Amino acid sequence: MTIHFTPKPLDSADAMEAELRAIGAARYHDRHPFHHLLHEGKLTRGQVQAWALNRYYYQSSIPLKDAIVISRFRDRATRIEWRHRLEDHDGSEGEEGGIDRWLILTDGLGLDRKYVESGHGILPATRFAVDAYVNFVGSRTPLEAIASCLTELFAPSIHERRIAGMLEHYDFINQDVMAYFRRRLTQAPRDADFALHYVRDHATTPEARAAVCAAVVFKTDVLWAQLDALYHAYVTGHIPLGAFRPEEAG
Amino acid sequence: MTIHFTPKPLDSADAMEAELRAIGAARYHDRHPFHHLLHEGKLTRGQVQAWALNRYYYQSSIPLKDAIVISRFRDRATRIEWRHRLEDHDGSEGEEGGIDRWLILTDGLGLDRKYVESGHGILPATRFAVDAYVNFVGSRTPLEAIASCLTELFAPSIHERRIAGMLEHYDFINQDVMAYFRRRLTQAPRDADFALHYVRDHATTPEARAAVCAAVVFKTDVLWAQLDALYHAYVTGHIPLGAFRPEEAG
Repeated sequence: MTIHFTPKPLDSADAMEAELRAIGAARYHDRHPFHHLLHEGKLTRGQVQAWALNRYYYQSSIPLKDAIVISRFRDRATRIEWRHRLEDHDGSEGEEGGIDRWLILTDGLGLDRKYVESGHGILPATRFAVDAYVNFVGSRTPLEAIASCLTELFAPSIHERRIAGMLEHYDFINQDVMAYFRRRLTQAPRDADFALHYVRDHATTPEARAAVCAAVVFKTDVLWAQLDALYHAYVTGHIPLGAFRPEEAG
Repeated sequence: MTIHFTPKPLDSADAMEAELRAIGAARYHDRHPFHHLLHEGKLTRGQVQAWALNRYYYQSSIPLKDAIVISRFRDRATRIEWRHRLEDHDGSEGEEGGIDRWLILTDGLGLDRKYVESGHGILPATRFAVDAYVNFVGSRTPLEAIASCLTELFAPSIHERRIAGMLEHYDFINQDVMAYFRRRLTQAPRDADFALHYVRDHATTPEARAAVCAAVVFKTDVLWAQLDALYHAYVTGHIPLGAFRPEEAG
């Protein structure tokens, strides 16, 4: 990975894309120890509950983030393209969306749906990281807002490993509750493809390309910080006051 | 109309709705002199061009406003309901929306589409008023954001008069270019119906009901200020520097 203190000039879209992929290889949360434990079957049901509960706050904030992204674009074609993300996550009347599929997972883990939806019991660090992401897309440039979604480039491989690993290792996980991840295997590449083309076309100076890369670094931090907080609370065992406590220890 | 310096207590949803309808009767822009001139055939083609050009900025900002409204709600059902406004205004790939229909009007009036879409030539007061509306829904409470859309309660009657009046009085107006208004005759009541039920259900204190009413007063100001600026520039004749100048005077 590039050391960012001495950046190389990003003098082309290809150079930028190579840097983005290097950032993903070095910083994406598939490298996080919590995910290794999750995918290798090393977590208790209570720890998996804590992960799914906290991650619900991220999932349920994604449509807010995407609505803000839409509001940043006077260009109608970009808004129309981005709108399908709202549809994917929220679903439609009588049609299941990504948030419904996440709730199928938390149901399957035995978490009360009202509790999950309330946001009570999540780690403050989860809220801070997710809210930082939502604020980022509203306050930075539209280019940076789109760039921050580019971690989707790296999502399909982690989802494949997650589906296989969790099904293999946990008797409380079955195909039904993994529906969210299966669906994202096809949704994420479409989204990432649009966003990658967008930043390749619209970041036309070395400075703009550096801003795109910094936005992806920021986003990898948003994802990583959530897992750090989960690890500290539920693996190391320092659960903060007011946060979810698994009923069973192992 | 209620004098707002000595407000009566809004102690029920019915009292609030009555007040909202009184605000509409007194302040909605169907009462504005510019609209009287427009609907009675008293404007030149150049003045109608100026109206359609400026109003395009309002139309094209509505999806940004609606995306921000969506981003204010953690409640998925409200987001899904509100999403159809994005679809109505933006359309979909290969499917015409309200903004397309507004451009059919500006096309029909002989305005260059690139010029209209650029926003060059609109009055600064148009931009200030419209941007104030977009900012309002992002900075006030979600209840006030929804309430500010309630001028749609009063829209169908003005659209009916506009369609009839403009078709009757202007030889440069035909059925085709009035498509936007015909479509809103059915869209606006659905939208207004949802918003009215929403504020009736969610404004549960006199203070909250007063905030709902104030939001509608604000919105009538947004609409009225745009017509004041048009009147001053294009009827009285003080066109500011940089603003659109009709090629012909009469």
